[in-house]
Amino acid sequence: MHIQTPYLLFLGDAADPLAAKVAQGICDWRPENAKGQFRMEGCNADLGLTDMSIDDAIEAGVKTLVIGVANRGGVISDLWIEVLREALSKGLDVAAGLHNKLNDIPVLVSDAEKYGRTLFDVRHPTATYPVAVGVKRTGKRLLPVGTDCSCGKMYTALAIEKELRAQGAKADFRATGQTGILITGEGVSIDAVIADFIAGAVETLAPENDADHWDVIEGQGSLFHASYSGVTMGLIHGSQPDALVLCHEPTRTHMRGLPTFSLPELDECMDACLRAAKLTNKDAKFVGISVNTSKLSDEEATEYLAKIEKEHGLVAVDPVRHGVSRIVEQLV
Amino acid sequence: MHIQTPYLLFLGDAADPLAAKVAQGICDWRPENAKGQFRMEGCNADLGLTDMSIDDAIEAGVKTLVIGVANRGGVISDLWIEVLREALSKGLDVAAGLHNKLNDIPVLVSDAEKYGRTLFDVRHPTATYPVAVGVKRTGKRLLPVGTDCSCGKMYTALAIEKELRAQGAKADFRATGQTGILITGEGVSIDAVIADFIAGAVETLAPENDADHWDVIEGQGSLFHASYSGVTMGLIHGSQPDALVLCHEPTRTHMRGLPTFSLPELDECMDACLRAAKLTNKDAKFVGISVNTSKLSDEEATEYLAKIEKEHGLVAVDPVRHGVSRIVEQLV
Repeated sequence: MHIQTPYLLFLGDAADPLAAKVAQGICDWRPENAKGQFRMEGCNADLGLTDMSIDDAIEAGVKTLVIGVANRGGVISDLWIEVLREALSKGLDVAAGLHNKLNDIPVLVSDAEKYGRTLFDVRHPTATYPVAVGVKRTGKRLLPVGTDCSCGKMYTALAIEKELRAQGAKADFRATGQTGILITGEGVSIDAVIADFIAGAVETLAPENDADHWDVIEGQGSLFHASYSGVTMGLIHGSQPDALVLCHEPTRTHMRGLPTFSLPELDECMDACLRAAKLTNKDAKFVGISVNTSKLSDEEATEYLAKIEKEHGLVAVDPVRHGVSRIVEQLV
Repeated sequence: MHIQTPYLLFLGDAADPLAAKVAQGICDWRPENAKGQFRMEGCNADLGLTDMSIDDAIEAGVKTLVIGVANRGGVISDLWIEVLREALSKGLDVAAGLHNKLNDIPVLVSDAEKYGRTLFDVRHPTATYPVAVGVKRTGKRLLPVGTDCSCGKMYTALAIEKELRAQGAKADFRATGQTGILITGEGVSIDAVIADFIAGAVETLAPENDADHWDVIEGQGSLFHASYSGVTMGLIHGSQPDALVLCHEPTRTHMRGLPTFSLPELDECMDACLRAAKLTNKDAKFVGISVNTSKLSDEEATEYLAKIEKEHGLVAVDPVRHGVSRIVEQLV
């Protein structure tokens, strides 16, 4: 799968900025690929990119419209179809990482054929995976785990890969979700594999490697998220992580999408993740806490991080404000 | 998935009685659905049902031919095809829970279409499921959980349903695996759904019900099984169990299929399951331990059960030797 760059990032009618996290991830990690954004009426996300029509985008050299927004359930909204058709008719490919497929929408399939364009469904694994065997693999692995969904696990993993490489270490980010796959061009959309093969797909994604090589595996969901916990559990067991990083967003009042569920305590969450991790790697340990402090002032963030460092005896950083070098120090 | 009853149980050329265990399960738990058996030359299984031709079965009111046998490899044998075609041509649906699909065999697909019949591949869900919402549902739910795979969870659940009904309680077994689905005619093969929808599928399978109604949900896998733990986690969260029953096979030397993994301690397993269960049902508790003592003598079994009753302060029974009435007493 090779998706042509640069991209026009389609934000549609995003309910809030978090709904546009796919597009945000591309902006953050491959800014050179993010030429502009396309927003519809009612869109509550803004990446600060130039707002472009399809014609503007083509003039700017864009090759692919990337659906950078997810609504609840992760499906392609009927409201978006006319925009996607315009993009195809004017010469853009379309890429998406949602639960339903562009390739299952007849009008898009026929348009793509008519105009010689390609529809990329990056979420849908085309490979089949084996059942996990649980046998310890050579090489080192790091897995971010979260108190909740959408609290910085992919960002943390990408930042750790970047920092490890900057320090001359061998490291690869292993994408397990649609944004990661759109950023790196490869990976397994782990929440879209058949339930029996979750851990097996992760074993395939992060295979045996050099003893001093780090696979930095993108985390997903949370053991405390009532909708997606199965994915997280299989991901932990398949990863056999040597190092875990807890990811947390401290201002959230309830679990994402689940208004009646409060967040777990950090200790409770780390305890559950570590117990799970030790099943496939007895040496698993937490090496740091990565906090998304974007909704706190500098002073509040500093205070909060100092407090949890003291409480948990672990390095605590905001990867955006402070970088992850203090976490990476723990790996060497 | 809803399969019409009653059934003609197809035993084919079963190598031995064990090969017909799916059919045996139907006879044991839904005898009213087992109108007759169809045996081919060389069949070494006999359920003690009336041997019927396809014509006999139709005259007896049968609606569906169920493949109740597994040959080596768990695939549909070429030898069976002519019988399946005759069944379709004379007005029966055909159901199977094998690795390959009836729906992938062109001649069966075209016959089914020609005669207006349905081919049920119960291992392969055709429905789509919503993401779990975690909202507490009315009605009571019981879930067996295991130290390992294949240690008696389905048997335990079916026995509890039967005992509850015998005591006049409202109860329904909810099948989550292929054998359970063939026994009852409906359910979801939970290990074959897309990972993101494991818990959501269970919420659909065991919906709101009368306050005094028990859904007895078939358990799958184990939180301590490195291959399938994700399925188990999603199943626990989607079930919102009021009552958990630990299932265990005490002579097993390692986790099924994983020679390097030992079994968890009963306490450790119950602790992990209860922590998980309390996320979606704060009142979750263990009500008993169901032990498969088939490899122990009567004396050893009695001694073992007495020992774990004392150690864990829970009723411990072998559902085959002793029935599950002592567990069901804990529910009332």
